[in-house]
Amino acid sequence: MSKLPPRTHRLDFPDLGRDLVAHDGETIFQAARRSGVRIVGACGGRGTCGSCMVRIPEGHVEDLEGKGQSWRKRWQRACRIQAKSDCTVEIAPRSLAPVARAEIGHDGGQCLTAAPRVSAVEVAVAAATLADPKADLERVTEALARPIGAVELSAARQLPALLRQHGWAVRARFLDDTVIGFAPPGSPNLGLAVDLGTTNLAAFLVDLDDGKRLAGIGVENPQVGWGADLISRINYASRSAEGAAELRTAVLNGLNGLAHDLCHAVGADQANIVDAVICGNTAMHHLLAGLPVHQLGRAPFVAALQSAIDITAAELGLDICPGARVHLAANIGGFVGGDHVTALLATEDRWQSGTSLVMDIGTNTEISVIHDGRILSASCPSGPALEGGHISCGMRAADGAIERVSLVQGRIAVKTIGGLPPVGLCGSGVLDAVASLHRAGIVDDRGRLSAGHPDVAQVDGKRVAVLGPEVHFSQEDIRAVQLAKAAIRTGTELLLRQAGVQEADIDRFIIAGAFGSYIDVASGIAIGLFPDLPRERFEQVGNAAGLGVCRMLASRHDLQRGRELAAEARYVELSTIPQFQKAFLNNIGFPTQSHSRIAS
Amino acid sequence: MSKLPPRTHRLDFPDLGRDLVAHDGETIFQAARRSGVRIVGACGGRGTCGSCMVRIPEGHVEDLEGKGQSWRKRWQRACRIQAKSDCTVEIAPRSLAPVARAEIGHDGGQCLTAAPRVSAVEVAVAAATLADPKADLERVTEALARPIGAVELSAARQLPALLRQHGWAVRARFLDDTVIGFAPPGSPNLGLAVDLGTTNLAAFLVDLDDGKRLAGIGVENPQVGWGADLISRINYASRSAEGAAELRTAVLNGLNGLAHDLCHAVGADQANIVDAVICGNTAMHHLLAGLPVHQLGRAPFVAALQSAIDITAAELGLDICPGARVHLAANIGGFVGGDHVTALLATEDRWQSGTSLVMDIGTNTEISVIHDGRILSASCPSGPALEGGHISCGMRAADGAIERVSLVQGRIAVKTIGGLPPVGLCGSGVLDAVASLHRAGIVDDRGRLSAGHPDVAQVDGKRVAVLGPEVHFSQEDIRAVQLAKAAIRTGTELLLRQAGVQEADIDRFIIAGAFGSYIDVASGIAIGLFPDLPRERFEQVGNAAGLGVCRMLASRHDLQRGRELAAEARYVELSTIPQFQKAFLNNIGFPTQSHSRIAS
Repeated sequence: MSKLPPRTHRLDFPDLGRDLVAHDGETIFQAARRSGVRIVGACGGRGTCGSCMVRIPEGHVEDLEGKGQSWRKRWQRACRIQAKSDCTVEIAPRSLAPVARAEIGHDGGQCLTAAPRVSAVEVAVAAATLADPKADLERVTEALARPIGAVELSAARQLPALLRQHGWAVRARFLDDTVIGFAPPGSPNLGLAVDLGTTNLAAFLVDLDDGKRLAGIGVENPQVGWGADLISRINYASRSAEGAAELRTAVLNGLNGLAHDLCHAVGADQANIVDAVICGNTAMHHLLAGLPVHQLGRAPFVAALQSAIDITAAELGLDICPGARVHLAANIGGFVGGDHVTALLATEDRWQSGTSLVMDIGTNTEISVIHDGRILSASCPSGPALEGGHISCGMRAADGAIERVSLVQGRIAVKTIGGLPPVGLCGSGVLDAVASLHRAGIVDDRGRLSAGHPDVAQVDGKRVAVLGPEVHFSQEDIRAVQLAKAAIRTGTELLLRQAGVQEADIDRFIIAGAFGSYIDVASGIAIGLFPDLPRERFEQVGNAAGLGVCRMLASRHDLQRGRELAAEARYVELSTIPQFQKAFLNNIGFPTQSHSRIAS
Repeated sequence: MSKLPPRTHRLDFPDLGRDLVAHDGETIFQAARRSGVRIVGACGGRGTCGSCMVRIPEGHVEDLEGKGQSWRKRWQRACRIQAKSDCTVEIAPRSLAPVARAEIGHDGGQCLTAAPRVSAVEVAVAAATLADPKADLERVTEALARPIGAVELSAARQLPALLRQHGWAVRARFLDDTVIGFAPPGSPNLGLAVDLGTTNLAAFLVDLDDGKRLAGIGVENPQVGWGADLISRINYASRSAEGAAELRTAVLNGLNGLAHDLCHAVGADQANIVDAVICGNTAMHHLLAGLPVHQLGRAPFVAALQSAIDITAAELGLDICPGARVHLAANIGGFVGGDHVTALLATEDRWQSGTSLVMDIGTNTEISVIHDGRILSASCPSGPALEGGHISCGMRAADGAIERVSLVQGRIAVKTIGGLPPVGLCGSGVLDAVASLHRAGIVDDRGRLSAGHPDVAQVDGKRVAVLGPEVHFSQEDIRAVQLAKAAIRTGTELLLRQAGVQEADIDRFIIAGAFGSYIDVASGIAIGLFPDLPRERFEQVGNAAGLGVCRMLASRHDLQRGRELAAEARYVELSTIPQFQKAFLNNIGFPTQSHSRIAS
């Protein structure tokens, strides 16, 4: 008689101080990603890149064909094995996303202006006696001798043990006149800033006393397991309360994993994280806050709320000081979220005068036009193609990814990350590839891939451009890029028209976002993604959203400015503009160009 | 091969709309009580009273000897059977504590003064469109056109579905300038008031719009399963976080059961309970609030906090409108809790002039002396004896309980509740029994039970007074009463001395509490529980704590007055007063009396 196997197994990651549950049918890679373990996996778990190496010193695993794998000391791909018992998992050092001092943007020094909204006061009181049996909290609040509006219950719960363990001295943490927590005397005041992306979570640990960024880290958003795009996740969460809770738990696991790993890296205690600011697009924001997304996923795409929220860490489920207020940055509209607000905040010194455009390219591309003291903002559903998603040989920026494509004597030449043999194409390479193929005349102005060029071949009955022995670029790939760039360019045009501005009037074209910092602006202009402005008007500022959210964490003034920017920005729904369809169709093709530029 | 049985079974109570989990080894009665099901059990589950009758139409039960009981249609004692599979349970109508219009105190009319702190405003908004895609919350708050300080996230979560289900109209519930919830237009505003006793939970449902008390109900506190007295529970909760969580869950189950049953009785929806006030002694308060009790259970008996707390229902775990603020009434000191504050509030019109004493007799007896504009409060650990607890034949006030004992021609005569044959002795009977035995000379001034009286017998080698065929009163029972009344009388004397008042100066001796309303004041004076004041100075006011907590719920002014009373009252720790031991020993015996009064 065979026993039915249990449905879950425990995976213990002793090096990370983490354990988690793997479900039946899930690979070690999937379970780790779902739980916010920062395992690298450039190919997303397809088994092609070999970047997710693990050893299983204890426990029983099988490969995907059901063959037992009993190597204890050999590195295996986590995406090819499943746990069949509780397991201990060791991740190869190179397969663990590093915790690093963050480089945020081009002006990314280590120090932010420190003006935190959470302050601390230390106080010592007389020990309670039978003759003086005043309650602990009142004993401390009277000694603090300052106006106190409220005390978080979670803070009061900590107090009796703290007082008795630390000789009746304690550190009180204030947000305005509210006591949000108590801690041992001398505890540091740390803050957590999070840029909550559809694809990636980036988190930064900040010392609130001096504004120093202590560490930063990025992992894949665990919700990717429920769908790479927002609409899949919105649909899943809309179907049932359990579905919404699953997605909420997934991203919370990710955030808690980041907080754990950041603190672990600098020897800090998560309980000393006393403030947090999170920015994200509206859907990510709603899924995290437990707000309904059903109405966000269908016309007229309405958010449940758009103002900033401050919610206790305990209520949110974030494992930091439970009374800390987690600030979820305000959103501008259904698809222009708090991450765009923080990008505006971080770039404000660049766009304060003249006419500026701020663009953050992603699966949804947010655009703001700032002109004449007004901010108009819109979102374009550009899809993942420009970042290498849904591209036949697309991959994330990792070793072996083609990041640059150019023409050398009429032939296609590629440059890969790390100089390794090409294994795929990342976002900046996609843009270059299309621009080069067009310049070479391999792709015509309407986007058709023609035969007759030595770098064009027939593979599996399909015509493809050959970028490497195993790396091809197909007609479908070109079409995907056309749709993406047409969406963005159309959004740009319509938003400018709403603002009463001509393309040529743009003084500064600010490209925010990690992806935006790697792309070649000339390629972008060549394929019509960007207007043909003088090159010096473009500024690629890197992860402005990440910098902005750190600033909001470090300074109450920037937090307030973030609120103001969100309130000032006027959301423009592009799909209601009558010219939308016509403009979009106009932008599908590539700009006609002089062939003298081909061999440049 | 026998399978190991699962450790828990589900008990379904279809008549109550409740289901719950029974653990192995637990009787149906115990599981029901632990989960706050309002099953009657006068003897506390000892199998003697037959008041907890149930039928099991589905499922498998065994008696305590392990014999299967397959009667589907026969009533059985719930305290004698255990579930061995999932079961459906039907409680006999007479075994279900009734939901009743509450009689609270002597001035207990149905209507309270309505000045609730929660108000409601209804608003209709234009439907969102692509051209007007403002977020739901901002759409509504702008239309409300009044200052809004904050919106509970739980309220925002409800809003999108409500707006779309009710034609873009909604009722907003405000606490000051905070939106605590949204509801369909026309929803009622209900409130829940709870007197959280060590032994019993009493709850009242109030219509906040007109102050009408809709229903009231009392059940045994499910925490009794962890110990009848506070110290057992404090010790259990101090041993581990899990233990504290168990006790917290138990009382929450009880409160949620009460809210469910109250709403069920009047056809209301728990989601329309938008305000709640809970009073209890300090330990019950801490266990409910998740505050640590370790320091409360040992000298110097310090509370974690003593001020009032407002905590969202969601954070507390109370299944009402999740953004509703549950007000936990302020405590006066380690063992003088919010239930005494509400008793003071409810009796304030009686003690505003002259010198008054307010006493609530229970396992802990709280006493306040009000004199010269000051309130001094203390607690006496009087134990459960006066309420019939820890008495050999003690029982709760129920059919067959001896409630009155008197002397008729030198012989003991008893009166039972319902006029039934005596099965035990409830609190008021205990007091009468001691007074009568003393008057009859059967018990001497030092409390010794003497032989030679026709109502004294030898049972199981012990000398007992015979109150009925199966109801005896032993030397140990008398000793328990002596300790209890000595504690209370000593507390009274010392507190009066602290206030600079003589016993004879007391203008009003106010006896609060359900138990206090049943006792015979003359018996209390006879055994020395009360000072020998003229009878007309005593007032038995019934459940003043219950009335006071309803008033705090119905009126923001009374809520504020409750806070003030708690802050004004000065806690006096009796055990630190040097005369305590001597006074206590002086009060152990009974007052010498003229024998002319024996046959009165």
